[in-house]
Amino acid sequence: MGLIMPQRVSLDTLNKSDKAGFVRALDGLFEAAPWVAEQSHPRRPFATVAALHDAMMAAVRSRPRQEQIAFVACHPDLAGKAARAGTMAPASVAEQAGLGLDQLSDAEFQHFEKLNGAYRQKFGFPFVICVRRQTRDAVLDSFERRLVNDVDTEIATALEEIGHITRLRLVDRVEGAGAPVVTGRLSTHVLDTYHGRPAAGVTVELFEVGRSARALLTRVTTDRDGRPGRPLIADSPLRVGNYELLFHVGDYFRSCGVTRDSRPFLDMVPVRFGIAEPEGHYHVPLVTTPWSYSVYRGS
Amino acid sequence: MGLIMPQRVSLDTLNKSDKAGFVRALDGLFEAAPWVAEQSHPRRPFATVAALHDAMMAAVRSRPRQEQIAFVACHPDLAGKAARAGTMAPASVAEQAGLGLDQLSDAEFQHFEKLNGAYRQKFGFPFVICVRRQTRDAVLDSFERRLVNDVDTEIATALEEIGHITRLRLVDRVEGAGAPVVTGRLSTHVLDTYHGRPAAGVTVELFEVGRSARALLTRVTTDRDGRPGRPLIADSPLRVGNYELLFHVGDYFRSCGVTRDSRPFLDMVPVRFGIAEPEGHYHVPLVTTPWSYSVYRGS
Amino acid sequence: MGLIMPQRVSLDTLNKSDKAGFVRALDGLFEAAPWVAEQSHPRRPFATVAALHDAMMAAVRSRPRQEQIAFVACHPDLAGKAARAGTMAPASVAEQAGLGLDQLSDAEFQHFEKLNGAYRQKFGFPFVICVRRQTRDAVLDSFERRLVNDVDTEIATALEEIGHITRLRLVDRVEGAGAPVVTGRLSTHVLDTYHGRPAAGVTVELFEVGRSARALLTRVTTDRDGRPGRPLIADSPLRVGNYELLFHVGDYFRSCGVTRDSRPFLDMVPVRFGIAEPEGHYHVPLVTTPWSYSVYRGS
Amino acid sequence: MGLIMPQRVSLDTLNKSDKAGFVRALDGLFEAAPWVAEQSHPRRPFATVAALHDAMMAAVRSRPRQEQIAFVACHPDLAGKAARAGTMAPASVAEQAGLGLDQLSDAEFQHFEKLNGAYRQKFGFPFVICVRRQTRDAVLDSFERRLVNDVDTEIATALEEIGHITRLRLVDRVEGAGAPVVTGRLSTHVLDTYHGRPAAGVTVELFEVGRSARALLTRVTTDRDGRPGRPLIADSPLRVGNYELLFHVGDYFRSCGVTRDSRPFLDMVPVRFGIAEPEGHYHVPLVTTPWSYSVYRGS
Repeated sequence: MGLIMPQRVSLDTLNKSDKAGFVRALDGLFEAAPWVAEQSHPRRPFATVAALHDAMMAAVRSRPRQEQIAFVACHPDLAGKAARAGTMAPASVAEQAGLGLDQLSDAEFQHFEKLNGAYRQKFGFPFVICVRRQTRDAVLDSFERRLVNDVDTEIATALEEIGHITRLRLVDRVEGAGAPVVTGRLSTHVLDTYHGRPAAGVTVELFEVGRSARALLTRVTTDRDGRPGRPLIADSPLRVGNYELLFHVGDYFRSCGVTRDSRPFLDMVPVRFGIAEPEGHYHVPLVTTPWSYSVYRGS
Repeated sequence: MGLIMPQRVSLDTLNKSDKAGFVRALDGLFEAAPWVAEQSHPRRPFATVAALHDAMMAAVRSRPRQEQIAFVACHPDLAGKAARAGTMAPASVAEQAGLGLDQLSDAEFQHFEKLNGAYRQKFGFPFVICVRRQTRDAVLDSFERRLVNDVDTEIATALEEIGHITRLRLVDRVEGAGAPVVTGRLSTHVLDTYHGRPAAGVTVELFEVGRSARALLTRVTTDRDGRPGRPLIADSPLRVGNYELLFHVGDYFRSCGVTRDSRPFLDMVPVRFGIAEPEGHYHVPLVTTPWSYSVYRGS
Repeated sequence: MGLIMPQRVSLDTLNKSDKAGFVRALDGLFEAAPWVAEQSHPRRPFATVAALHDAMMAAVRSRPRQEQIAFVACHPDLAGKAARAGTMAPASVAEQAGLGLDQLSDAEFQHFEKLNGAYRQKFGFPFVICVRRQTRDAVLDSFERRLVNDVDTEIATALEEIGHITRLRLVDRVEGAGAPVVTGRLSTHVLDTYHGRPAAGVTVELFEVGRSARALLTRVTTDRDGRPGRPLIADSPLRVGNYELLFHVGDYFRSCGVTRDSRPFLDMVPVRFGIAEPEGHYHVPLVTTPWSYSVYRGS
Repeated sequence: MGLIMPQRVSLDTLNKSDKAGFVRALDGLFEAAPWVAEQSHPRRPFATVAALHDAMMAAVRSRPRQEQIAFVACHPDLAGKAARAGTMAPASVAEQAGLGLDQLSDAEFQHFEKLNGAYRQKFGFPFVICVRRQTRDAVLDSFERRLVNDVDTEIATALEEIGHITRLRLVDRVEGAGAPVVTGRLSTHVLDTYHGRPAAGVTVELFEVGRSARALLTRVTTDRDGRPGRPLIADSPLRVGNYELLFHVGDYFRSCGVTRDSRPFLDMVPVRFGIAEPEGHYHVPLVTTPWSYSVYRGS
């Protein structure tokens, strides 16, 4: 059974559409809420995709509390029965699948069911989170942390998460000029202060660090300027989570002829860091000699 | 069945002993080689334990090549049948047990047997290594690396290792003045350059990093001067191997009220390093803020 | 005309003295105020010199405001006519001479006179500062800054400065056990992370950095542990002020054979820092390669 | 009396010129040596300005030793009588004026005359150096250092310097596509690892550090990305010499509200470095907190 993704549309076309066409083109963006598009239509034209998104979120935020709760309540459970039964909106299906939430073991499924149940019972609406901005462990951390909040905090948090969800969906759906929607970036750089030059040819591995294990996301080699030849994370937003960059410093200095030890002081240098704002720029350089290194959040 | 360790003796007593008493007091120090003590007796008095050790090693080194090979050949296999059968000298028993070499699984035992066999076949004498200066993985690394050497290199290496073995045995056996025998040291220190002061109350864990896993060796907390309240490794020499210090930087800055993030940029900071010379001083400080850190081999 | 310094006395002797002997032994410690010693006498015995000092300062602080002002008013002007006319207490003479305040040029003398006049006119008592804790420029900075305070702040500040003055005088006068009175310390250390070892043989110069010029205080060479063979500042307390350590890094790496450039990237490395608390420990290490360095306030 | 600079010409025009036009357009580029242009003419077309320069230098290098000496001998003395008498080629006039060599005091003029005389007497040709790549002190350093060389080294050095001189003249004279001729660059960047972000609004001063004094070259303020809003050195090549960047770190942290001390540990942070290859990229970032900083040659 194929998953039919809606066609992309240009911002220009949207700006020229009548209400029916406008609502149709943005169908499914806000879960079961065509009124969001309807109420945004009169505010055309939009200069950027970001402006369109702002208008749609403003429509949501202008509703009374009860309507906002009802709107939040329309969202599917995370890794819930809807995912297994195939009754979820196409965008949600793809998003939850991105974290493997459609292929949980029975034990994991039951853990999520238990958290979903506890959350619904306390707040009266499902737990909403933008999974595209989260690693699987970060989703669990967030679930446990948010369960202790009060209901007003959770309504606000749910709307904020819906803001993230729909912003990323809009970027996929609407072609606009410029770079109107911010997505974060992870970059690195290796400086060799033994020689006073960029470190070329250093193998760097990026891991996602989970509760119980770490998973290799990518392996790159630095170029003549000490930077990876390609992005560490491409074609997708950053995710909230914990990460490790592993720099093969020992191999590098051996290949330069600086060290010949079979057991150097520095060999594999791990740098572990958290990403809390996936829309930010995380530059994590390494400045190193065979006997020292410095790490910092750069820019 | 108890393991009877020889009694400690003072250097002064040794210096005043006749040859028979001298040889008896140093029995078992050099594996099956009372002649080493005999030939060293005339060089009394010894100012330090180190001087006594130098004299004994000089006796070994002055022998012709064939006698040196015969001397090396008297040593037991590593993790070999002697260990299982209980026919090894008491000191060797204790030393090999220190690495758990007396309690290998059958698969591990067979791996060692295979290496022992290959080594003996190539060189005509057993693989000798000072296990008290090595982690288990470092023993395996060394075994594999030394198998490719030529016989002269291995005779020299075996004598050097016997030097390490007997030096550490002497330290246990003979009470001398001063600090005549060097043993290495591992230390750390945490500086907080956010506040410009030592970081007090930081949890620091020390792990041995093996081929497949890492094992917690100790957990300490830094005092008001940013140093562990007690030695990281006490009552034993350092061992060749790979290590990781894990600094709980996130908890520290949370407890200072500097960060409140549930997911800070820096949380657990791992610093991985190799020890190649267990007689050296390895000072591995951390200079840190919530957004940066530096590591170096200090002094 | 010789300057007669009072004889040193032991804390033990003081503790056993009658009131007259006690007051005589501490004569001149508090400017023109024998009552301070008198009122402290009943609180004998004192466990430490610091406890004696605390008792004497408590006697001052327990007096009513008007008496405190009168007490402050007994102090001589800084670099004033008393200094030129030779009518100042011996301790004050030596202290002011330590900064060269007895040998000012006419222009400098007039600048101080003007500040002294303005201060007296505003507050009704002279400007009191512990000159032994200050560089000359720091005295001027402080003078200008304190002139804008209100009178209560200045009474409190004057008493605090008298606390510093008399604490340092007590240390000179009374021999006590232990190290009861804190004096600060300036230290340095040079680490070479090109080789992974302390940098031995590095020339380090210490300058006082004044408003218009810098003055060389001392020149040292690092020993095998990368530390100066002798204290940077000895036999005197630290002084509030600005300083520069100048590390001859280029010469060091040239002498190691690492660089041969006539114009290396790093040659003379200046590290400029302020000392605001002369009772603190200022450890200012340098961690360096030919292409990088790090500086921090260590411990 | 006006200084007439030759008109700029495009590489395309040069490639299409006949020999007479080609030589005329490049007149004065190589001091009194039209044969250099003549011999390069047949090698047209040139893809880049750099290729044209390579061809011209190849023509010089292909000449026999005696002709090379004669060619070098045609160059004017540095800060010599020709400069005062106005008999020097227009390009040389402008270049020497750039360092103020046309406005020396009598004492300085005599010092240069003495060096020029000693050099000519030893080698038989004048001291040639590309002054546009040098600070005044670097010229003097170089003069003194080169006087001890042998004649072959000096012929080679003179030709290398003529290569630099004519490369920079060509860049001024010929408009070519792309960026065919490398000129160096000096840049900086300030990272604030107290907050984990670029340091915006930091005043940074650049000084040339001479033998006896330092001269302010420029003062900039860092932008939101922690970089100077404009190049530190613009519109001219870097010069061999010693430099100091002075970072106003104390003001920055005061303006952030981090420190309120009138005398912070770090206030003005000087970073002194040498530029030996003016064609290189010198990136000199500062990574700082109120209590620490790191400096390195970056990229």
